[in-house]
Amino acid sequence: MAPYPGLLAPLRLGLAALCRRPLRQGRELSTPATPGTSLDLRGIFPPLATPFTARGEVDYGRLEENLHRYARIPFRGFVVQGSTGECPYLTPQERLAVLSCVRQALPPDRLLLAGTGCESTQGTIAMSLSVAEAGADAALVVTPCYYRGSMTSAALIHHYTQVADASPVPVVLYSVPANTGLELPLQAVLTLSQHPNIVGLKDSGGDITRLGLIVHKTRMEDFQALVGSAGFLMAGYAVGACGGICALANILGAPLCELERLCHEGRWQEARDLQLRLIEPNAAVTQKLGIPALKQAMEWFGYHGGSCRAPLRPLNEAEVQELRRDFSANGWL
Amino acid sequence: MAPYPGLLAPLRLGLAALCRRPLRQGRELSTPATPGTSLDLRGIFPPLATPFTARGEVDYGRLEENLHRYARIPFRGFVVQGSTGECPYLTPQERLAVLSCVRQALPPDRLLLAGTGCESTQGTIAMSLSVAEAGADAALVVTPCYYRGSMTSAALIHHYTQVADASPVPVVLYSVPANTGLELPLQAVLTLSQHPNIVGLKDSGGDITRLGLIVHKTRMEDFQALVGSAGFLMAGYAVGACGGICALANILGAPLCELERLCHEGRWQEARDLQLRLIEPNAAVTQKLGIPALKQAMEWFGYHGGSCRAPLRPLNEAEVQELRRDFSANGWL
Amino acid sequence: MAPYPGLLAPLRLGLAALCRRPLRQGRELSTPATPGTSLDLRGIFPPLATPFTARGEVDYGRLEENLHRYARIPFRGFVVQGSTGECPYLTPQERLAVLSCVRQALPPDRLLLAGTGCESTQGTIAMSLSVAEAGADAALVVTPCYYRGSMTSAALIHHYTQVADASPVPVVLYSVPANTGLELPLQAVLTLSQHPNIVGLKDSGGDITRLGLIVHKTRMEDFQALVGSAGFLMAGYAVGACGGICALANILGAPLCELERLCHEGRWQEARDLQLRLIEPNAAVTQKLGIPALKQAMEWFGYHGGSCRAPLRPLNEAEVQELRRDFSANGWL
Amino acid sequence: MAPYPGLLAPLRLGLAALCRRPLRQGRELSTPATPGTSLDLRGIFPPLATPFTARGEVDYGRLEENLHRYARIPFRGFVVQGSTGECPYLTPQERLAVLSCVRQALPPDRLLLAGTGCESTQGTIAMSLSVAEAGADAALVVTPCYYRGSMTSAALIHHYTQVADASPVPVVLYSVPANTGLELPLQAVLTLSQHPNIVGLKDSGGDITRLGLIVHKTRMEDFQALVGSAGFLMAGYAVGACGGICALANILGAPLCELERLCHEGRWQEARDLQLRLIEPNAAVTQKLGIPALKQAMEWFGYHGGSCRAPLRPLNEAEVQELRRDFSANGWL
Repeated sequence: MAPYPGLLAPLRLGLAALCRRPLRQGRELSTPATPGTSLDLRGIFPPLATPFTARGEVDYGRLEENLHRYARIPFRGFVVQGSTGECPYLTPQERLAVLSCVRQALPPDRLLLAGTGCESTQGTIAMSLSVAEAGADAALVVTPCYYRGSMTSAALIHHYTQVADASPVPVVLYSVPANTGLELPLQAVLTLSQHPNIVGLKDSGGDITRLGLIVHKTRMEDFQALVGSAGFLMAGYAVGACGGICALANILGAPLCELERLCHEGRWQEARDLQLRLIEPNAAVTQKLGIPALKQAMEWFGYHGGSCRAPLRPLNEAEVQELRRDFSANGWL
Repeated sequence: MAPYPGLLAPLRLGLAALCRRPLRQGRELSTPATPGTSLDLRGIFPPLATPFTARGEVDYGRLEENLHRYARIPFRGFVVQGSTGECPYLTPQERLAVLSCVRQALPPDRLLLAGTGCESTQGTIAMSLSVAEAGADAALVVTPCYYRGSMTSAALIHHYTQVADASPVPVVLYSVPANTGLELPLQAVLTLSQHPNIVGLKDSGGDITRLGLIVHKTRMEDFQALVGSAGFLMAGYAVGACGGICALANILGAPLCELERLCHEGRWQEARDLQLRLIEPNAAVTQKLGIPALKQAMEWFGYHGGSCRAPLRPLNEAEVQELRRDFSANGWL
Repeated sequence: MAPYPGLLAPLRLGLAALCRRPLRQGRELSTPATPGTSLDLRGIFPPLATPFTARGEVDYGRLEENLHRYARIPFRGFVVQGSTGECPYLTPQERLAVLSCVRQALPPDRLLLAGTGCESTQGTIAMSLSVAEAGADAALVVTPCYYRGSMTSAALIHHYTQVADASPVPVVLYSVPANTGLELPLQAVLTLSQHPNIVGLKDSGGDITRLGLIVHKTRMEDFQALVGSAGFLMAGYAVGACGGICALANILGAPLCELERLCHEGRWQEARDLQLRLIEPNAAVTQKLGIPALKQAMEWFGYHGGSCRAPLRPLNEAEVQELRRDFSANGWL
Repeated sequence: MAPYPGLLAPLRLGLAALCRRPLRQGRELSTPATPGTSLDLRGIFPPLATPFTARGEVDYGRLEENLHRYARIPFRGFVVQGSTGECPYLTPQERLAVLSCVRQALPPDRLLLAGTGCESTQGTIAMSLSVAEAGADAALVVTPCYYRGSMTSAALIHHYTQVADASPVPVVLYSVPANTGLELPLQAVLTLSQHPNIVGLKDSGGDITRLGLIVHKTRMEDFQALVGSAGFLMAGYAVGACGGICALANILGAPLCELERLCHEGRWQEARDLQLRLIEPNAAVTQKLGIPALKQAMEWFGYHGGSCRAPLRPLNEAEVQELRRDFSANGWL
């Protein structure tokens, strides 16, 4: 019934060859959460950057090395194919290969969320099926946006319902207006929060009032709100978010987990002191200088960042200096 | 040197006649804060709504009655001529008469802030002089915005510096993009925070990351950040704001002061429960249904709201029902 | 019934003393158009800049000198108190004094439109009465915008209807989103076009499709569309506009009248060649560098521009060079 | 060197089987324009809608039937994979199959432009190579937009230069802010207009001043401006555009070609009368009701429209009535 059923099938062949370690037997196909089963999203998730070789190919070796370093940080899990991973610049084959590589490198107790949002409903469903098969614990589904004038609340509710009905793994909604020019309407979030296979929302918009209202209006549902940026992580915890998917966690993962702990323990003054030092570094690697800056800063902190795919451009020297200042002025370098 | 020195002088005549009680001797001229002297803004301030008679005239008697009821609530002070007061619809004479009336009705320990922002620098200075003379403790100065394309950071820094140099009372910056279409740039805020007669900022934009960064970057200055809307009051306290100027305080003043107390005492879980119940009522009387809704809800809670001046329109029946639901669904009615 | 009936009355005293020539007898009070009588707006109108002295006062002498030079250009008329005139920086007294001065300096066959839009309906009515008495042929009424969230189509229709009912001179609607952050909704324009005392619209938004649709949908009414910027004047004529109120006419009035003539005569190729050379100079003195640039360029072309009132800032040297290039690269300097 | 060289290669197999007629020998590979050779874009191009079967598959038969009817209209050519074709909802295989089908159905004198814009530069190059091989005469390249914060003028110039260097067929730039949230900056357009393999721009933004300025500033280049919407087609011709790629041409192709003819012959009054009747129907099938409305209206005019792929939703009954009114009120139904 799907108009393009065969699209992704051949992509799954030979993925194991791309990664160094053998596929763990069975996990991918046997353990995805049953739809409706709650998935505990409490904690910090880095949306993983994708390292490339000098020739512009995905560098799976360096990706694994990053993951080995991240293993020492008490992250709840990881996201592949988020905005930070340059997902729109990867081929479908690469998307699944990256996912498979990450799945193998992770301890089994870490969650793995995979971005599966495509413009079409059918494409999103197909990708959700594929990532479930490749070992993802949940699908992170960005709003379709190209025909934003037609993406009414009703259209988006229909889209996400179809996806959640079909997905073998739970669905996390994803609203990121800075990239999509579209905010998932509050009413759509509230309606979709009642779907048994929709377990949460990553909200990157930064409107803390909206985030609080979502927490308030979904309090009777099994629905978890995740902060989409380190800039308002503490404020998010204050109003009831359960965790964060934060690009900055690629660089300053330990402090973000520390911030989470301080909030949970009610040590708000210490939390504030830490949070305020994170705003400028976070802004620098997101809205101000973007992914090239994130990858540059990763290098400073011992991770493999490397270059970006075009049309993203490397930083110029002035931008590198500005980036360094945003970290050093806050005591991180 | 001022191009229109005489504009406001005649307006001051006969203000006493408008209010029931005699002008308290001397206060207006003798007690305005010396520039550079710190003014403690910690706490909640209602930006007072202006009641009108059936004929559309300012109803000073009902305004005083509201103030008598507000006296039982531990507000830090009050704002006249904020956006909520329909200030753009008042004549200069009315603006000063309202101020004078409020000043007289207030106990001396309550602060009185007066909006003085005009499009021109000279007009703003003239109004700041007038409100100081009439008893205001500080001037709340909204960004000029008609020529917003020319309102660069440099132009706004120049404007506010001129105003703060001339004002006999301390200046509080006021950024309210929903009304002005203009956000006071971060860099301008930071520069202006160093001026000895600029003591704080009311930020109504709702960007909690920006608010946190302002707190962080002005921590070495004598500068206080005030939340401009009840929707993110608790989040504002979490990142270091010192108080709030909240339209909703015209209606639910006691709960807002309670929210402040819970935040100060570190009772964040209780604070959150209260904050989340305030978001919908607040949205209803601000961005959703505006001042006509605020005045309608005031009536339900025992205050005098009354009608608005045109072009603001009364609510229709469906809007009244919607407004009521936003209060009742959160346990306030 | 008006809440502030006396506001403008005393301002009218002694206006004659400000201008060199005696008031022409009777015109001001006897000849304003009867409501419902059509007013022919076809042609080009400069929205007059306001020259100031070195001390920041309105320089009525230089204003008259500009008008004497403008008399040689076949303008249909003039606008006072438009955005270009720094109207928000003038006191009500100054606004009427400028109007009176211009009225006296003009030949009787030139129309005089006066900006009368205030935030409140009553204030707009009061100002419309005053300008009619002072000799304006029509009132140009900008949209109120401070409470833009409440400025629905219904609220704006009510506002303009009240104003048009009360105004002794015809009303021209004025939509200028770059300054107000608000576009007068199409539906409001269509409804208001049926009012007998509303004779047209100045649309500065630049959406030529909208302008065409307004022409099309009001073709059965006595309603005239005026282009609000020289950048799309020819396109406006192409879709049926009747003229333009263009800031650039303060500087390049003759070429704009020539462009009008070419369009009327169907000489579209010549019109295009001329139009295209006007876009960059126009952009420079409006959205790019604003009124300070307009006044600087006026000096180059033999008019008195002078400085602006604060918070508008003078151009720096780099901006002056950029401004000069925008004129010289198109053959005007 | 391309990171994913093999992505599209297998897709080219067996395309002939999808269409009824045999591939015309040689054309696809032998006649694409040599880079640098001018391609005459003067005229009207429909961006073809893609009919689907009831099961959601591309209906190549009905697509061909539409093309047979379109053959009677003096279009300059056609666009496949534009926004109107639901291109983001097609798989890469489908995109090429549609292109191949259209190429075969067209007389050789009609141009065929194919949308090839992907988020990544490499993906856009790969798609441009593929469409050239499949018979497209030019590549229409929409701006990448997901990381819009990083899509500076410099980044976009680099992107388009890489694509134009690599593409075997000429490149047409495509700026459509309503879909992408991004306008190709003027400076980027001017720089890119000098590239020998970039022959024009489709501008759907509707800013006629900008369009005029682009015509003016590229007059020394071999560069053609195409209007991206029927709403401002005549205004575009007035300021020097050479043609239009207009969604409405799927429905009212003959009147659009007639409008073109009237403009070319200088019959501006007749042109205006026609243009003004096209604005509402065009708005209805684009920004107001979108592609579902376009496809519905196609049915009324004898073409095959059919349903859309999800998440686009079918019109409800009220929307169908509104759509019908927008055509009938202007004399088209």
